[in-house]
Amino acid sequence: MAAELTAHQLIAQHRPTLDQALEAIRTRAYWSPHPEHPKAYGENGSLDMAAGKAAFDALLGGRLDLGQPGTDDWVGGEVSPYGIELGVTYPHADVDTLLPAMRAGQRAWRDAGAEMRAVVCLEILKRISDRTHEFAHAVMHTSGQAFMMAFQAGGPHAQDRGLEAVAYAYVEQVRTPDDAEWTKPQGKRDPIALTKRFTPVPRGVALVIGCNTFPTWNGYPGLFASLATGNAVLVKPHPRAVLPLALTVQVAREVLAEAGFDPNLVALAAERAGEGIAKTLATRPEIRIIDYTGSTAFGDWLEANARQAQVYTEKAGVNTVLVESTDNYKGMLSNLAFSLSLYSGQMCTTPQNLLIPRDGIRTEEGPRTYDEVVADLARSVGGLLGDDARANGLLGAIVNPDVKARLEAAAGLGEVALASREIANPDFPDAVVRTPVIVKLDGAKPDDQAAFMNECFGPVSFAVAVDSAADAVALLRRTIANKGAMTVGAYTTSEEVEEAVQEACLEECAQLSLNLTGGVYVNQTAAFSDFHGSGGNPAANAALCDGAFVANRFRVVEVRREA
Amino acid sequence: MAAELTAHQLIAQHRPTLDQALEAIRTRAYWSPHPEHPKAYGENGSLDMAAGKAAFDALLGGRLDLGQPGTDDWVGGEVSPYGIELGVTYPHADVDTLLPAMRAGQRAWRDAGAEMRAVVCLEILKRISDRTHEFAHAVMHTSGQAFMMAFQAGGPHAQDRGLEAVAYAYVEQVRTPDDAEWTKPQGKRDPIALTKRFTPVPRGVALVIGCNTFPTWNGYPGLFASLATGNAVLVKPHPRAVLPLALTVQVAREVLAEAGFDPNLVALAAERAGEGIAKTLATRPEIRIIDYTGSTAFGDWLEANARQAQVYTEKAGVNTVLVESTDNYKGMLSNLAFSLSLYSGQMCTTPQNLLIPRDGIRTEEGPRTYDEVVADLARSVGGLLGDDARANGLLGAIVNPDVKARLEAAAGLGEVALASREIANPDFPDAVVRTPVIVKLDGAKPDDQAAFMNECFGPVSFAVAVDSAADAVALLRRTIANKGAMTVGAYTTSEEVEEAVQEACLEECAQLSLNLTGGVYVNQTAAFSDFHGSGGNPAANAALCDGAFVANRFRVVEVRREA
Repeated sequence: MAAELTAHQLIAQHRPTLDQALEAIRTRAYWSPHPEHPKAYGENGSLDMAAGKAAFDALLGGRLDLGQPGTDDWVGGEVSPYGIELGVTYPHADVDTLLPAMRAGQRAWRDAGAEMRAVVCLEILKRISDRTHEFAHAVMHTSGQAFMMAFQAGGPHAQDRGLEAVAYAYVEQVRTPDDAEWTKPQGKRDPIALTKRFTPVPRGVALVIGCNTFPTWNGYPGLFASLATGNAVLVKPHPRAVLPLALTVQVAREVLAEAGFDPNLVALAAERAGEGIAKTLATRPEIRIIDYTGSTAFGDWLEANARQAQVYTEKAGVNTVLVESTDNYKGMLSNLAFSLSLYSGQMCTTPQNLLIPRDGIRTEEGPRTYDEVVADLARSVGGLLGDDARANGLLGAIVNPDVKARLEAAAGLGEVALASREIANPDFPDAVVRTPVIVKLDGAKPDDQAAFMNECFGPVSFAVAVDSAADAVALLRRTIANKGAMTVGAYTTSEEVEEAVQEACLEECAQLSLNLTGGVYVNQTAAFSDFHGSGGNPAANAALCDGAFVANRFRVVEVRREA
Repeated sequence: MAAELTAHQLIAQHRPTLDQALEAIRTRAYWSPHPEHPKAYGENGSLDMAAGKAAFDALLGGRLDLGQPGTDDWVGGEVSPYGIELGVTYPHADVDTLLPAMRAGQRAWRDAGAEMRAVVCLEILKRISDRTHEFAHAVMHTSGQAFMMAFQAGGPHAQDRGLEAVAYAYVEQVRTPDDAEWTKPQGKRDPIALTKRFTPVPRGVALVIGCNTFPTWNGYPGLFASLATGNAVLVKPHPRAVLPLALTVQVAREVLAEAGFDPNLVALAAERAGEGIAKTLATRPEIRIIDYTGSTAFGDWLEANARQAQVYTEKAGVNTVLVESTDNYKGMLSNLAFSLSLYSGQMCTTPQNLLIPRDGIRTEEGPRTYDEVVADLARSVGGLLGDDARANGLLGAIVNPDVKARLEAAAGLGEVALASREIANPDFPDAVVRTPVIVKLDGAKPDDQAAFMNECFGPVSFAVAVDSAADAVALLRRTIANKGAMTVGAYTTSEEVEEAVQEACLEECAQLSLNLTGGVYVNQTAAFSDFHGSGGNPAANAALCDGAFVANRFRVVEVRREA
């Protein structure tokens, strides 16, 4: 088959972007090729706002036929957290047919080499980028994110993370040269000479198990890391968030085919309600790599049972912010208020426990008691979300009934410093929109500890009174060690406290944001610069992205012979 | 404490070597800083042959006091495969005291940074190199290797593998810069600016579980990879091969102390006979990394049970050489004869199954029948080992009674093409020295398959008659997939067969040597150039050395704040 996209074209078009990505992960300075502003789209083949919305609307109620082999049925049933039924159906796969078909194209994909795989991945990302407006609606109506967040986190930021994974995968594969001449001196005798050829080979079929809240952002790193290292990739989306990953698979299959490769190198495994296909897939012998984002229970199950595979998990943690002192009290409050509110706290990186000395904190405006700090924070959140339109734009919708139930139960755990408020969404009357609750707890009380030492995913934060900064650091250590943490924040003007918090994070292996008062928030990480998770505490066994995230997705086979 | 070895001195002395190692792993051309010739030693502080022997003799019957905390007893009992009792005793550790003591120095070691750790490791290797003659006797009298092999494989080649691990560890840690400035444009508003600090942090205490046959060669990669990435390292040697690793620990502790670090960052865990301390240590919560070389059964146990640790295993495989055709029949026979004889086949890389078409092979001297090939190979081995002195120098001694028992049992498995012969060692009358046995088996017979499809570690090879080259390739694939392989060899002048063997090795992930007829053997790999194992088949889950071998021994913690 004559490829419509030649290696020459793809390399000419994408190699400069790959080189910039390689430079960015080396310097970790700011960089992104994917515009964050909705108005940046609409030229050079990309869909503008209206076209993206129209494309999304055209998908509703239809069948997304990916042309996959072994399709034995059509399944669907997504209902947007904003209330609309998507009505899209997807291929349901007979895995005994699909998995062998996915392996058929692996040899050609392997033989294409690391650079060709990288630029094919970049072409996939480019086409996804062009459809960012369409993806934004797909992410919004599966995750419940507000439009702007679905656009940015589900679009350019997710694409950045995918590109970052491609860059890491590429550089890892080319660390060993394709060929080597090895000539060993033998004193007066002739040297011994060998020629050696090194080939990166894939592990097999990789499985990506998607999540409900960030289907693209959390799905792309594993998907692209595995594909770029030569593996076929089977995408098993969360049953409530199929569409964004199904579109991704569709684009990948198109590009692979146009570049002369077997489209079955990327496939979708949608499931019937309650089918629980992830366990079956995860233990199939063909599956050699698994990327998973979701609950700790299933992540632990995968690590224990999918022994034939390399398993990369992002599970749950309990994120802490230490509030000890600040020289920008208002900045701190508004920064924290935003962090607690964004996407109704439904991020694995949202702070849960705010540790505040019961004797109060120092600020540039003088001391503030524990009660004052909590009341001021509550006021700050209240102010941020006081306007319903802005609140809707920040909070998005509650993603599922479990989150709503946890939110409602949280008010019974202690004294409520800020009650959750119901907000109407004029565009989507069925959307469940709630402001965060802040509950006061005492770090010294066992019952309270039982509450705040477990992840309470959703718009729930605990203002935990602690005896001292030292007590807070000790509690932080215990929390990371026992429960894991995706993020840690701290506010302090004390060198001693800063040093103690840093040392706790270095020893317990958690990513720390210090004294954020401006437009960067503890729950946000930027691709090419910030690591997402550390891979060294119970919240996640891998970080996005580093060498460890890609290095074991392929192996290098050497063939040597006498020169 | 004022360090006797300053960072400045160590970097000045060792940075050039590190840079050369970094270049070598990038080009994979021949390089080694460690001389292979015994006469190269004796100047610049290194021990010459006589001094090395004297140093070894001085150890015998003595107590090797490493100054470790928590030493509750002294244990020993090594008996050389050459018959002499070493009589050395080693500290037996109370691990509840030793493990916490090992963690005490980790913060300073972490804060020293990747370059300082690398040059401290290089200083350790330098001092080991200076004592290569002493180590050679220690390796010889624990592994049973002949002196020259113990000298080279246990000395410079092991040191090369250790240095290679340091180089990989270093480069992996400096991929992320120490600091970054991140400035994100905000249109007309001021940009957002963050400063970020990235610190490689260790996982915890690493455990190295040594083996009997190559205590240093197989032990050094894990030891140095873990130490160079900031971890403390506990070395649990094989009870029959303690001395080489105990000396290694001694040198490491000396250098660490002189450089101002806690010597307890490296410690020895010797055990009483039958104590089985490896299982206890491997599941301690402090142990976060394990490197293991040995039986498949215990390697599998570690992978299944030491779930709190990153586990790197080199287990057993069944190595195959395909003999289909050659244009250098004599070269092939002598190359194979050497491979089968070296260290009595007691290498994880020694070929076991020689697959030969029952219709014979093509050679530059005309066709040879299966029987002729096997007879010629037997004659070639016989000739190589015909002289007892040369035989002793190649074979070494049988390492333990199990190997001897397997050798004796092998003769009953089929028609013996070459019988094993007992050889006297004039220097060590109690040494058990045996030439290899070659047994003819039929690849089509189930009973024969049962014999050759299991690892028969020791001087046992099977000449397996197969129906065709295609049959041989199919059998090769099955063997790698089911049993694993550290090495694969093939002799063929047919492009088609070469292609089929290569494809089998690429798909099943095994390292291939083609048509070796000169002074390089399928069972030898050179550091900085050849990978040892692939990490992609059941024989080993890691390769020596690549990025995957080091990337997950540390994590990177980021601390970010507003600029």
